[in-house]
Amino acid sequence: MAVEAEEMVLVDAGRLEQFVVDCFRFCGLDEKDAREAMEVLIKADITGVDSHGVPRLRNYVQRLRTGTAKAHPDVHIVHELASTAVVDGDEGLGMVVGRRAMEIAIGKAERTGAGFVSVRNSSHFGIAGFYARMALEHDMIGISSTNVGAGGGTPPTGGRTGMFGTNPIAVAVPTKTDPPWVMDFATSVVAAGKLQIAARRGHDVPLGWIMDREGNLTTKVADRGGGGYILPIGGLRETGGHKGYGLMTLVDILTGVLSGASIGANMAKLSAAGSQAEGARPIGMAGNTGHFFGAMRIDGFRPVDEFKEAMDEMCRVIRSSERLPGWDRIYTHGEIDWETEIDRRANGIPLDVPTYESLQAISIELEVPLNIKI
Amino acid sequence: MAVEAEEMVLVDAGRLEQFVVDCFRFCGLDEKDAREAMEVLIKADITGVDSHGVPRLRNYVQRLRTGTAKAHPDVHIVHELASTAVVDGDEGLGMVVGRRAMEIAIGKAERTGAGFVSVRNSSHFGIAGFYARMALEHDMIGISSTNVGAGGGTPPTGGRTGMFGTNPIAVAVPTKTDPPWVMDFATSVVAAGKLQIAARRGHDVPLGWIMDREGNLTTKVADRGGGGYILPIGGLRETGGHKGYGLMTLVDILTGVLSGASIGANMAKLSAAGSQAEGARPIGMAGNTGHFFGAMRIDGFRPVDEFKEAMDEMCRVIRSSERLPGWDRIYTHGEIDWETEIDRRANGIPLDVPTYESLQAISIELEVPLNIKI
Repeated sequence: MAVEAEEMVLVDAGRLEQFVVDCFRFCGLDEKDAREAMEVLIKADITGVDSHGVPRLRNYVQRLRTGTAKAHPDVHIVHELASTAVVDGDEGLGMVVGRRAMEIAIGKAERTGAGFVSVRNSSHFGIAGFYARMALEHDMIGISSTNVGAGGGTPPTGGRTGMFGTNPIAVAVPTKTDPPWVMDFATSVVAAGKLQIAARRGHDVPLGWIMDREGNLTTKVADRGGGGYILPIGGLRETGGHKGYGLMTLVDILTGVLSGASIGANMAKLSAAGSQAEGARPIGMAGNTGHFFGAMRIDGFRPVDEFKEAMDEMCRVIRSSERLPGWDRIYTHGEIDWETEIDRRANGIPLDVPTYESLQAISIELEVPLNIKI
Repeated sequence: MAVEAEEMVLVDAGRLEQFVVDCFRFCGLDEKDAREAMEVLIKADITGVDSHGVPRLRNYVQRLRTGTAKAHPDVHIVHELASTAVVDGDEGLGMVVGRRAMEIAIGKAERTGAGFVSVRNSSHFGIAGFYARMALEHDMIGISSTNVGAGGGTPPTGGRTGMFGTNPIAVAVPTKTDPPWVMDFATSVVAAGKLQIAARRGHDVPLGWIMDREGNLTTKVADRGGGGYILPIGGLRETGGHKGYGLMTLVDILTGVLSGASIGANMAKLSAAGSQAEGARPIGMAGNTGHFFGAMRIDGFRPVDEFKEAMDEMCRVIRSSERLPGWDRIYTHGEIDWETEIDRRANGIPLDVPTYESLQAISIELEVPLNIKI
């Protein structure tokens, strides 16, 4: 799908990082938390997930300043076994809560081979892939997921009540010399941000992204506003949409039912009842977002070096596939992010104008200097 | 998609079970293994996964009789930590190997909260969902996956070299009074069996199942034979096909790279080289199939009763979704299997004529009496 180039502002990665740290510091986070939260955010900007980095900084700042997210949450284990835990995020910033919880999963994996942590009372945590990647330096496979409301909710197959957020799943697997293998995607056909871009530019979207209120595929973004919905991976029933609906439900189970966090179905129920019960606020808001993290030691299965060599070899063979007309190259998962990071670290991060302007507004509001343009 | 009714033979579930046990006993399995392998097979027939049960009995019998699958495999742990293991299936029947390996995962979960087992040197293990379901009676979440070659291989996004089998993933989650929540699906758009049915009946298939040799969607099954391929969940790139390609790769990593079993990419490489290396036989054959099993204790996270009630409530709300025109009912995952099992246990299992005839042929070949018609 061809997309016209938007005007972009090129900014320096290092200075952008410092700006984000300064903002979080201003909002009351201590140095370590501010830096760690920044790393999650910037990983999105620098790897090309342009919807999940500093474009959302204003949101996070607002939550901290209004107290919707706590600057000093008491992130703690509620219940645990050797390889499992439920963690309460105490309404902290999702990035702070997420990193603590993933560290707990990794610690458990160090001791037993595998660790799994379900989290409640957290908030939007940025890109799922960041936490999965945390396992890599420990020679572990990392898993990360969250329930989110962005996108307005996808109905179950055959339905037309929004029930599920874009509920991403990420898995990161270590390699030897290859870029790490990292899969990180929404369980909807596309992330909500891509629809917003199409709407802003007045473009049609590919057939298979959304359905209208009667359940027919449509290329018109406006049909979604009129009672239609973004579809799960697989689209409608006949092309396997029930599989995406299954994955969306699975994410709600692991992040919400297992931890006691809010889930999409609760929200649908509340919205139908026109009321708000305690502990079950709308998905996508700060209240009671759930996450799920996992880590498995490679050497709990096979010698690390042997495994990594086999990963490299698998990726190499996949990339050597014969190509369809119009394809210059076959990618394995994580390669594009990897190359984008190298490029943007060296040459700067392109931000769209609304994002740059939002940073200017934050700079004025917090009186934190913004000097990031290259 | 409307499908004409095929002529069916109605058979009694209990007598069919005994016939399968008798066949496996004839092939040298001891009583326990014969019964356990039968249970996996019949679970497919009785829950409506008509491609994976007794229609494949002849295959299994053949493997056992030719020695391609061992009747008395030495299924053993190669390496383990408290929560992980690699198991060698010693070229046993996949159903026998799979049950042992899942029992090991469950045992580890009992002790630490979570258990994960990757398996090599196994063979086709029937439906993935059976093993995931084994966790339910232990109040655990069960996970099961296998790499398989059925379908001829799906290429990576942008490619046209078959690299991945239909690589199913299954997850089972306990509930209180609801049918258990069970997701069990191929990571291709459809299982290969559905294309075979369409080919046999001369039907077109829905747009989104297969592409032709140029990478265009097509409704003609014949285009697949002419250099086209079955697509991963999500279809082509623009509708999220790279997500399905990611899930297919993930299955190969967990079942193959982690255990040392064969994976799709190796097969593509070998087929390109026109040779067969040791320990890396074509996917779908008896040699070196890989599986992956996981179990997590619910009470490693949250009290079992609380969790199960929340599962029931979530399923109830999902099913209460407003419906699209033409939909009588919203299903949660596992409901259809559950109701089909109750119906078929009481009223018999409908087998298509070729399947019934294959059982007659086995009966004659093994001199095991077949008396299953209702």
